[in-house]
Amino acid sequence: MDLSAIVEDSCARDWETVDADTVDPVRFAVIGLGWFTKGRALPALEASDRCEPAVMVSSSTEKAERIAAETDGADHGITYDEFHDGAARDAYDAVYIVTPNALHLKYVETAAEFGKAVLCEKPMERDSERAARLRDTAADAGVELMIAYRMHTEPAVRRARELIADGYVGEPMSVTGDMSQRLLDRIDPNPDQWRLDAELAGGGALFDIGIYPLNTARFLLDADPLAVTGNTSSTHDAFGEVDETVAFSVEFPDEVYGQCYASHNARQSSGITVTGTEGQVRVEPAFFQDQSRQLHVSRGDGRASVTVEKVDQMLEEFDYFADRLRGDAPIRPDGDHGLVDMHAMEAIYEAAETDRWVSVD
Amino acid sequence: MDLSAIVEDSCARDWETVDADTVDPVRFAVIGLGWFTKGRALPALEASDRCEPAVMVSSSTEKAERIAAETDGADHGITYDEFHDGAARDAYDAVYIVTPNALHLKYVETAAEFGKAVLCEKPMERDSERAARLRDTAADAGVELMIAYRMHTEPAVRRARELIADGYVGEPMSVTGDMSQRLLDRIDPNPDQWRLDAELAGGGALFDIGIYPLNTARFLLDADPLAVTGNTSSTHDAFGEVDETVAFSVEFPDEVYGQCYASHNARQSSGITVTGTEGQVRVEPAFFQDQSRQLHVSRGDGRASVTVEKVDQMLEEFDYFADRLRGDAPIRPDGDHGLVDMHAMEAIYEAAETDRWVSVD
Repeated sequence: MDLSAIVEDSCARDWETVDADTVDPVRFAVIGLGWFTKGRALPALEASDRCEPAVMVSSSTEKAERIAAETDGADHGITYDEFHDGAARDAYDAVYIVTPNALHLKYVETAAEFGKAVLCEKPMERDSERAARLRDTAADAGVELMIAYRMHTEPAVRRARELIADGYVGEPMSVTGDMSQRLLDRIDPNPDQWRLDAELAGGGALFDIGIYPLNTARFLLDADPLAVTGNTSSTHDAFGEVDETVAFSVEFPDEVYGQCYASHNARQSSGITVTGTEGQVRVEPAFFQDQSRQLHVSRGDGRASVTVEKVDQMLEEFDYFADRLRGDAPIRPDGDHGLVDMHAMEAIYEAAETDRWVSVD
Repeated sequence: MDLSAIVEDSCARDWETVDADTVDPVRFAVIGLGWFTKGRALPALEASDRCEPAVMVSSSTEKAERIAAETDGADHGITYDEFHDGAARDAYDAVYIVTPNALHLKYVETAAEFGKAVLCEKPMERDSERAARLRDTAADAGVELMIAYRMHTEPAVRRARELIADGYVGEPMSVTGDMSQRLLDRIDPNPDQWRLDAELAGGGALFDIGIYPLNTARFLLDADPLAVTGNTSSTHDAFGEVDETVAFSVEFPDEVYGQCYASHNARQSSGITVTGTEGQVRVEPAFFQDQSRQLHVSRGDGRASVTVEKVDQMLEEFDYFADRLRGDAPIRPDGDHGLVDMHAMEAIYEAAETDRWVSVD
């Protein structure tokens, strides 16, 4: 992995194991038809050679059928209740769960009952106890479970990870990451949405966007948190129940320290930087889908910035998931991986309440 | 303050109050003739219209006289003992103290006795108790005291500060800063120098370079820490006594959070970023003198990077100090300002020992 290879082949799908032409596409039941599904997920499923958006699942028959009619490859529009009752169960192979966090478990329970593979949005659930049940439910039923961390198939992040694994930065020493946006600007005119509801979301900025620098730090370092501390704050009434802003620190093994920031009330910004004894690798912008990625590296006397072609991150993620379902390679990130973030985020909230460092179980 | 003005006039000496041609230059006794003095300070004093490097003070007459002979404008080379005894006391108006931290106080005591103004390197001393005595010594004698934070007269940092004060980023929400270098590579073949000696330095990476992001964060935000936490670590034997690496978090008023990192064992890196509700301002590279500064801003839909001419930071600092001595404007950063860093850094060490957040007195 050298820089020339990165420039030339930055978007290589190095994870591919199965020729798409030799296998049937994976047919999805898409559970939850909010703006993210309509704007990001369905276009990716429509564009994919490996996937089909077969079944739309929503709160009303009318909405589900309307979106099914608008979506290439969708033949069914059913309600949540009908889904649980087994409607159209022969029409899909896997479920993609993109509901409020606290509803993930019950859809996984039904998918497990029907023997369907699961791609579940992050964070896994609203708390670690339910996330553990979610993982166990899939394992007990023998269905595949992947947590939808799209940074794991984001080319710029993968190239950064390869550089780090190959020793480009020497021994990693620190990681810094941030993600911020003006959520209230984005979701207007519907401010009272589930992301602000503690019962449905489980957490605020940390669960929704702080999980990006947290999880990407883990992915880049290939290491998990030992202890965390942090602070949360809110300035808007809409964030009365959950954190609007979080600043947190993570102790990784080998005295590698992480410092992360996430806010729903700050200028859009996103980046992650790993500094080692010999070099530095930074992806910035990093986490928002509508921006091209830049990979900034420095080592020795020089520094360079590589602009990585923008890919459809949801397409990469869906195609990876389908590749794994149709092949034999293990599927990652799995439920155990997602559960580590749940424990870490709960520890950050505990630390914020108690003003101390909290070990991550 | 708009971007066009910054591009056009980025190195403006907006702090100037006195025409250099109308006043006598400030004659310095330079106390401590190590590599920083010889490589950075003396060339600046030689180049300055406002200052003269009149008296060289070192451990031996031979060294002091040799360097005086090599330095334009230096007429005296004396020992530390001779300095305390009043040698050449009519030949200088001010002292520049660039000795190991734990020796600052005694030179300030002598300077105060002789009625000389003081420019004292940061950190003020090896601990806050001695730093407070240093401040009081100067105040009681009525001599001017400035702590040598060269970022306060670094043009890129000043422009960033003006943008923030003018509301460019909206309400500041977070600040992130780092400074790292491979100190052992730099000081070879003399690894057992005073920066690694706890008695002389008071602290390691935090005191030596962590103070840059800490203090620059304060300067950019115009705010002081309320509480801190952090971790320290060392991997090399040479750093047995002091921290080689420090990662620390700072709570500022109004729920603004700072996250800083400094290491003597990581790839050279330095930057500081303030993210607000509306925009972001970043200086990177920021703290090493041999790199041009870049000021990166984003707001609305766009982002821009401005390369700021490299200035001689020591010349800016000395000339500012001289301007203030010859004029009536208050001199900043003063001893009270420097003492805040001493308290904050001691609190960071306490936090690292106790794994909790510590209030800054």
